[in-house]
Amino acid sequence: MLILVGLGLWDIRDISIRGLEAAKKADKVYVEYYTSLFFSSPDEIAEKIGKRVEVLERKDLEEDCIKIVEEAKNKNIVILIPGDPMVATTHSILRVEAKRRGVESKIIHSSSIMSAVCGATGLQSYRFGKTATVSWTKSRAPLDVIEANRKIDAHTLLLLDLHPKPMQISEAVDILASIDSRVLNFYAVGLARIGESSEVYCDTLSKIRDHNFGATPHCIVVLAPKLHIVEYEYLSLFANAPKELEQILK
Amino acid sequence: MLILVGLGLWDIRDISIRGLEAAKKADKVYVEYYTSLFFSSPDEIAEKIGKRVEVLERKDLEEDCIKIVEEAKNKNIVILIPGDPMVATTHSILRVEAKRRGVESKIIHSSSIMSAVCGATGLQSYRFGKTATVSWTKSRAPLDVIEANRKIDAHTLLLLDLHPKPMQISEAVDILASIDSRVLNFYAVGLARIGESSEVYCDTLSKIRDHNFGATPHCIVVLAPKLHIVEYEYLSLFANAPKELEQILK
Repeated sequence: MLILVGLGLWDIRDISIRGLEAAKKADKVYVEYYTSLFFSSPDEIAEKIGKRVEVLERKDLEEDCIKIVEEAKNKNIVILIPGDPMVATTHSILRVEAKRRGVESKIIHSSSIMSAVCGATGLQSYRFGKTATVSWTKSRAPLDVIEANRKIDAHTLLLLDLHPKPMQISEAVDILASIDSRVLNFYAVGLARIGESSEVYCDTLSKIRDHNFGATPHCIVVLAPKLHIVEYEYLSLFANAPKELEQILK
Repeated sequence: MLILVGLGLWDIRDISIRGLEAAKKADKVYVEYYTSLFFSSPDEIAEKIGKRVEVLERKDLEEDCIKIVEEAKNKNIVILIPGDPMVATTHSILRVEAKRRGVESKIIHSSSIMSAVCGATGLQSYRFGKTATVSWTKSRAPLDVIEANRKIDAHTLLLLDLHPKPMQISEAVDILASIDSRVLNFYAVGLARIGESSEVYCDTLSKIRDHNFGATPHCIVVLAPKLHIVEYEYLSLFANAPKELEQILK
């Protein structure tokens, strides 16, 4: 059996008890650091689960994923995955390959930026539209998503590229503005290190660009054209939102 | 300090180690079963954390929430919350009230249907649009959200009302179809009991209505007009998706 276990947002303490038990019982445990940043080393994880942990590189997860699938035919294999598994396509493909080869698989979920962003910002989960990624290879795609979401009065979560290095908020804003400078006037929330010593700051993208968020991981939420009163109050109290945001209240 | 701790998707084994430690150290621990279904009793939770757990009703969380906030002025109060805290507005208001009264608060995240739905369906997280709730008081709102999302080629997660009783997929489809019968032709995925013995089934809403999903909680994803090939393969293998779905491949 192949078991994909979510590690959650920050370090090994964010794994669920269910996930920890599965790792303790497994014949072999892998971990990947490719699809998200994660702040426990393989040694720290090994200490918690009481056995050796092998690191999977991108190639092991993609071109060579059949190897792991084959291994899971006769053994219980756990792959530890930062955040919640399957938010990345890489993990879907792994489960598809397993099923095709008659290998059972299951997922043990954990915390993810996809829902944690609501807690960190006070923005309501049902008001988020599509998510997009700002990548180092400049692309219009995130701008198109922001525009489509704004048309249906939805917030946009922007994830920032991790490879070859984790992108900072200031870099992401520069990339977006180099394609369409009008985005600088949009209100947004910058977020750093959700799940640990978070920094959350709300203003226009132009102002957010100059704010010091500290270490990565970073992400951004571009606000919908209108805000609910509870969203506004929360951002005022927890993200230093400017008074002018009142003008976009519903 | 007021600490909102996510319990995750199913039972007490879905809490994170971080959340469990906070509950063990707290002066007082509350749990609420109002915002989501959860399958460990207060006694089972008490056994795991080694102390008594008091159940909060809707009224305690809403009109009377100041009481808990006041209590958190001099004590470490943990509120255990099914899923990931703050996905419900109720929890935002609690944190806003705490901040206003000078009470520190924090969130410890856990797994949520908002991201777990990707694992269960193989649908890609960045292709989800706004989420909506189908409520017992018939409303056009979810239909408007489905329509808006389909316009931007996005999937729609439909959560089903819990009060006065948890709604089943068949009942939700009946409610939607009574307002606009055209939805019956849309492709969708029905999901039951994500995080445990899940049942996931993909077809038109009309066919899904007649499928036996077993016990609640249930939810539905209405598909975008177009599917990616990996999404299609996953749904074929894990959700018995019909061959006709090929016609909506990108």
